[in-house]
Amino acid sequence: MDRLGRLMAELEKRGLDAALLHRSENMRYLTGGYTGEGCVFVCRDETVIVTDFRYVEQAGRQAGSCRVLSTDSGHRELKRIQELTDAHGIKTMGVETDFLSHDSFEELRKGLPFVQLESLSGTPEELRLIKDAGEIESIRASAAIACRAFENILEKIHPGMTEKQVQILLDFEMLSLGSEGNAFDTIAATGINGSLCHAIPSDTAIQSGDLLTLDFGAKVNGYCSDMTRTVGFGKVRPELREMYNLVYDAQMAALAAVKPGAVCGDLDKIARDILEPRYPGAFGHSLGHGVGLFIHEQPRVATGSTTVLQPGHVITIEPGVYIPGLGGCRIEDMAILTSDGCIDPITSPKQLIEL
Amino acid sequence: MDRLGRLMAELEKRGLDAALLHRSENMRYLTGGYTGEGCVFVCRDETVIVTDFRYVEQAGRQAGSCRVLSTDSGHRELKRIQELTDAHGIKTMGVETDFLSHDSFEELRKGLPFVQLESLSGTPEELRLIKDAGEIESIRASAAIACRAFENILEKIHPGMTEKQVQILLDFEMLSLGSEGNAFDTIAATGINGSLCHAIPSDTAIQSGDLLTLDFGAKVNGYCSDMTRTVGFGKVRPELREMYNLVYDAQMAALAAVKPGAVCGDLDKIARDILEPRYPGAFGHSLGHGVGLFIHEQPRVATGSTTVLQPGHVITIEPGVYIPGLGGCRIEDMAILTSDGCIDPITSPKQLIEL
Repeated sequence: MDRLGRLMAELEKRGLDAALLHRSENMRYLTGGYTGEGCVFVCRDETVIVTDFRYVEQAGRQAGSCRVLSTDSGHRELKRIQELTDAHGIKTMGVETDFLSHDSFEELRKGLPFVQLESLSGTPEELRLIKDAGEIESIRASAAIACRAFENILEKIHPGMTEKQVQILLDFEMLSLGSEGNAFDTIAATGINGSLCHAIPSDTAIQSGDLLTLDFGAKVNGYCSDMTRTVGFGKVRPELREMYNLVYDAQMAALAAVKPGAVCGDLDKIARDILEPRYPGAFGHSLGHGVGLFIHEQPRVATGSTTVLQPGHVITIEPGVYIPGLGGCRIEDMAILTSDGCIDPITSPKQLIEL
Repeated sequence: MDRLGRLMAELEKRGLDAALLHRSENMRYLTGGYTGEGCVFVCRDETVIVTDFRYVEQAGRQAGSCRVLSTDSGHRELKRIQELTDAHGIKTMGVETDFLSHDSFEELRKGLPFVQLESLSGTPEELRLIKDAGEIESIRASAAIACRAFENILEKIHPGMTEKQVQILLDFEMLSLGSEGNAFDTIAATGINGSLCHAIPSDTAIQSGDLLTLDFGAKVNGYCSDMTRTVGFGKVRPELREMYNLVYDAQMAALAAVKPGAVCGDLDKIARDILEPRYPGAFGHSLGHGVGLFIHEQPRVATGSTTVLQPGHVITIEPGVYIPGLGGCRIEDMAILTSDGCIDPITSPKQLIEL
């Protein structure tokens, strides 16, 4: 069944006549390509993009099978939604209450007194959980760009360069190789900044003996890749090398257990059991997360997550150790679940590199 | 009065004991620099950043005067908020109902049965409306980077290059000149793509006789710049040259009227009255918008906007003409309101350039 068909089936199962979607990635997924602002109304009879002047022509080009309604000349979005729900006799409609602001929800509720609004929280995201062949191709292409970019800049980075300089090199390389843009703000952290999981690249210069953590991703057809490599410079200090090797062991062990049927919380535990005894409390985040049109989506790969992996799931495996005042290390691959195991599209070297 | 003092004064005026902020730019503004996730609790006695493991150390480094509470080890955000409102005897609290999702709002409402939640919609944004000297310095630095980057790439772009190639050049140049990242996704549109106001750079190549619209901005200390230049190639076709010249006239006329006391809706009308007779319906968006930590913030510079400009406001002036099948043109500067007029930090040439 196609995407809209699967959404309609879900709506019918829940007794809903229509859905109104505002989250950019969900609109893109369901319309087959629309990337502008506004909202998408879906009912049995038609799918309508409601947007303003800036995106009307674009919507027609990107999602030819949808009708496009403009909100110009006083036809505010709410007015268009009223017209659509009236025209189709909609009595119950699902909205993304996990995304729509409380004010917007109240405006809809008051403006549509004859329509019962229900929560669609998580539903469009569930439709996007299992990736089809085209989506996986985009994710693999995105991962290939990220890997290639990383490998291309390795020969150019050296002690004395700043985090910011490395980030610019890497971002430029990904764009040059065809990325549509960064999947998220590139993280580059060296020395004691390595203990900041989401460090913002600074003017701190790389020093010999230190590590540099790079966490980055490309985008192809809207699909994100996500990878982390930590590289060393000169002769890496023994305490950092030890940290690296244990993170490496944890990452390899968790990755080896990824296959259909595996429980996400168990994967998290595999890595945590390796890191926790030596570095108590230092692996403070989850093992991983789903990746797709969102950089962070379902399934969660975290302590206690009961999600059972299935073919078509795409997740990250990214244990790390962070010690304020000393530094940090993270290694991250992606896993695309197949019928009997997984494909890791992150092919860049993972043993400690010393530059 | 400092930022937190102004927020507290506003809260007291409205009988609120505390505020809980989730919007990233508002958290950054009020804490003096925090850029991570989570939320910020503000009451008379203290300001507290509530966040998870990934940002705890960063919060301490970026906002030393705030207390930092971690949500780890089962202390979910809601639990921390409950502890804080209990400890401070909070009875009424403002939340950003124009940002917080409906689900999150409901979770707070149910989790804090003894706290009356009120809407803070627009309030933190109003505090940010008048920029102080430091903010204006950041905006000017950000604008200077954007202008310099544009001028630097002019000699490198030529017919045959694709929109995507020009975008990469421009983005790389801004990063190299010290931008923290793009203020928004760079727009590069040539030929008939010029009629897409928010075109995504494609593999369409520039042709002699055509226009290329570039809309882009840098970021410095979180502050955005925003500029648009439309350049020509070879001998620009007469119908496009005519379009350019009228957009230029409209832009110059509106910009000349920017000063304290001017009404935003009147500025919009100045440009619209010049463009509408010749190109009816083709200038379909607003004349401009405020710029700061957000790329689009208050004040609105649109039809009917009654906002009166004051020193410290920062706005864009960006009329355009868009004709499907023919192309489009937009010219955009920024205006920083001073006591007796405005400074335009966008200094790049504005007369039609033919490359």
